[in-house]
Amino acid sequence: MNLKALGEDRLLAQILTRLPRARDEIAGAGDDCAIVRPAAGGKLIVLKTDCVVESVHFRFGANPVDIGWKAMMRPLSDFAATSALPQFALVTLILSKEASSAWVMQVYRGLNRAAARFKIGIVGGELSSTPGPATISVSVAGSVEKGRWTSRRGGKAGDDLFVTGRLGGAIKRRHLRFIPRITESRWLTKHFSIHAMMDISDGLGIDLPRLARASKVGFTIDKESLPRARGATIDNAISDGEDYELLFAIARRDREQLCTGWRRTFPKVSLTRIGSLHRKSKVGNRKFPSGYVHFQ
Amino acid sequence: MNLKALGEDRLLAQILTRLPRARDEIAGAGDDCAIVRPAAGGKLIVLKTDCVVESVHFRFGANPVDIGWKAMMRPLSDFAATSALPQFALVTLILSKEASSAWVMQVYRGLNRAAARFKIGIVGGELSSTPGPATISVSVAGSVEKGRWTSRRGGKAGDDLFVTGRLGGAIKRRHLRFIPRITESRWLTKHFSIHAMMDISDGLGIDLPRLARASKVGFTIDKESLPRARGATIDNAISDGEDYELLFAIARRDREQLCTGWRRTFPKVSLTRIGSLHRKSKVGNRKFPSGYVHFQ
Repeated sequence: MNLKALGEDRLLAQILTRLPRARDEIAGAGDDCAIVRPAAGGKLIVLKTDCVVESVHFRFGANPVDIGWKAMMRPLSDFAATSALPQFALVTLILSKEASSAWVMQVYRGLNRAAARFKIGIVGGELSSTPGPATISVSVAGSVEKGRWTSRRGGKAGDDLFVTGRLGGAIKRRHLRFIPRITESRWLTKHFSIHAMMDISDGLGIDLPRLARASKVGFTIDKESLPRARGATIDNAISDGEDYELLFAIARRDREQLCTGWRRTFPKVSLTRIGSLHRKSKVGNRKFPSGYVHFQ
Repeated sequence: MNLKALGEDRLLAQILTRLPRARDEIAGAGDDCAIVRPAAGGKLIVLKTDCVVESVHFRFGANPVDIGWKAMMRPLSDFAATSALPQFALVTLILSKEASSAWVMQVYRGLNRAAARFKIGIVGGELSSTPGPATISVSVAGSVEKGRWTSRRGGKAGDDLFVTGRLGGAIKRRHLRFIPRITESRWLTKHFSIHAMMDISDGLGIDLPRLARASKVGFTIDKESLPRARGATIDNAISDGEDYELLFAIARRDREQLCTGWRRTFPKVSLTRIGSLHRKSKVGNRKFPSGYVHFQ
C-alpha cells in the first residue's frame, strides 16, 4: 500500500508503536515537541544533524533497513568524533506519495535498530511528501562531560596521528552497515588526553587537512602505513570516504600505553599510527588527491 | 555563481561568518557537533525538528528570504505550542548543484533573521546536494521549566477553547511571514494554568480533533464565532491551515481574567473563545471538513 492510500495518521500510528523510547523522555513522538530530562551533573548538551538523500548517499533499490541504519549512524559518527554520548533522536522522513508503507516501515526498522544499538530514544520527527528523491534527516541530542569533549582543534606540533579500523572501499557496501566508533572514542577520552579528533567521512585526503587547518599545524603522512580495507589501494584509503573511522592526535609520549591498552580492549579493531603533526613550514603539507566533495 | 562552481567550503565560509551565535555556545557551526551549556535551574530540554520542501511548502520562485524565515519559524511554532524557550538551531540545506549561491545566502538571511527574532543561535547544520526540489530541515533545542510545559493532552470537560489571531487564507501569503506565538504562549503559562495547547498548522478542522483525542474529551465549536482573517470564509478558517496560531483549553473560571489580561498585554492580537470541551457523548463531535493532510 502506498502512503497516499494509507494516510499519514495510520502510518504514524504504525511507526509510533515500534519506536525505541528514551529513559529520560517526558513527552516524545506524537507531541508537538519532545521534552527530556537533562543529563545529571551539569554535563554539556551536544547537538548534531545529518541527512541522507537517495541517489547521493544511497542508490534507489538499496535495502531500506540499511538506509535507515546509515541515516541514524551518520550523525552518531559525529558524536564519536566529539566523544559525546548520544541520547535522543528526531527523524524527518521526506518521501514521495508513491512510496510504499512497507518500505517506510523497513527504513524505520533500520533507524530503530541503529538507535537501540546505542540506547538512544527516537523522541520525535516529521513526515513530509516530496516530488523528489527520498530524504532522511536525523538530528541527535546528547551530552558530554565538561572536560572531555574533543574537536578538530587542539592538535599540537609533535603529536602522533592515529586512525582506527581500515580505510578505503567503504562505498561499495560497508558504508551502509558501519558502526560509529562511540565506544572506542569514549574509551580514548577516559584514559588519555586526546588533543584533536574527527570522524573520516569525506575521506582522509579531505578530512586530515581540515583537522590540521583547525589545529593550525602541518602534517606528515606515511602513505605506505595507511591501514587499508581488503582490496583497497592507497588511493582508495585516501580518497574514497564514507569510512566513519576516527582520526585523532595524541601526545607522542602516550604512544606505547595507548597501543597496549587498545589491543587489550579492542582486539578486533586495528589502531594505526599514520603520521604526525608538525609546525607549518615552507614545504607545506603533502598534497592529497581530493576525496568526495559535495557540489563538485 | 552556482554551488558547483563556488564549492562547498567557500559557500560554508560565507554562511558561517553571518550566523547568529548563541550565548551558551561552546562549539558551534564548523565543528563536528555543537556543544552548548544546559539551561540553569534544572530546566527540561525541549527538541523539535521540521522541514519545508519546494513545491510542497513553498513554490518555486518564492522569495528566498521568506523561505528561510518559514523554515525556521515552523519548528518555533511548536515551541510556542509547548510554551518552551527555543535556544539553539541546526539547519540542513538540501539543494541542487545548480542552485545559485546568491539564493542560498538569501535563504540564510531569512533563517538568520528569524533566529535572531527570538535570540536563537544557529549552532550547526549540514549541506547536501540533491537532484530533487530544495529542502530545508531545521532542528531546534531549547528549554522549559518543569511545571510549565503544555501539550495536546490535559484538556478537561468544561474547559473553554480559545484561539489567538485570525484564521484562514494564510496559504496565500501570510504563511511565509508568520511570527510564532512564543511570547504569547509564555505569557499564558506564566499567569494561567493552560490545560492543553497546540499550534494550528494543518487547520483547525484537523488540529482541534487531535487536541480533543489526545485529551480524551469531545468538543463543541460555534462556527460563527471563529475569528477570520480578512476575506476568509468560515470554511477557510476551518480548513486552510498554515495559520500557526495557538489553540488552547483553559478552565472556564479563568475566562474573565484571561480576556482582560490579554487585551492589556497584547492589544493588537485577538483572542477568541470558539467553543468548549465536554465529555464524549453519543452525539459525537461536530464533523469538520478536512484540512490539509500530507499524503492525501
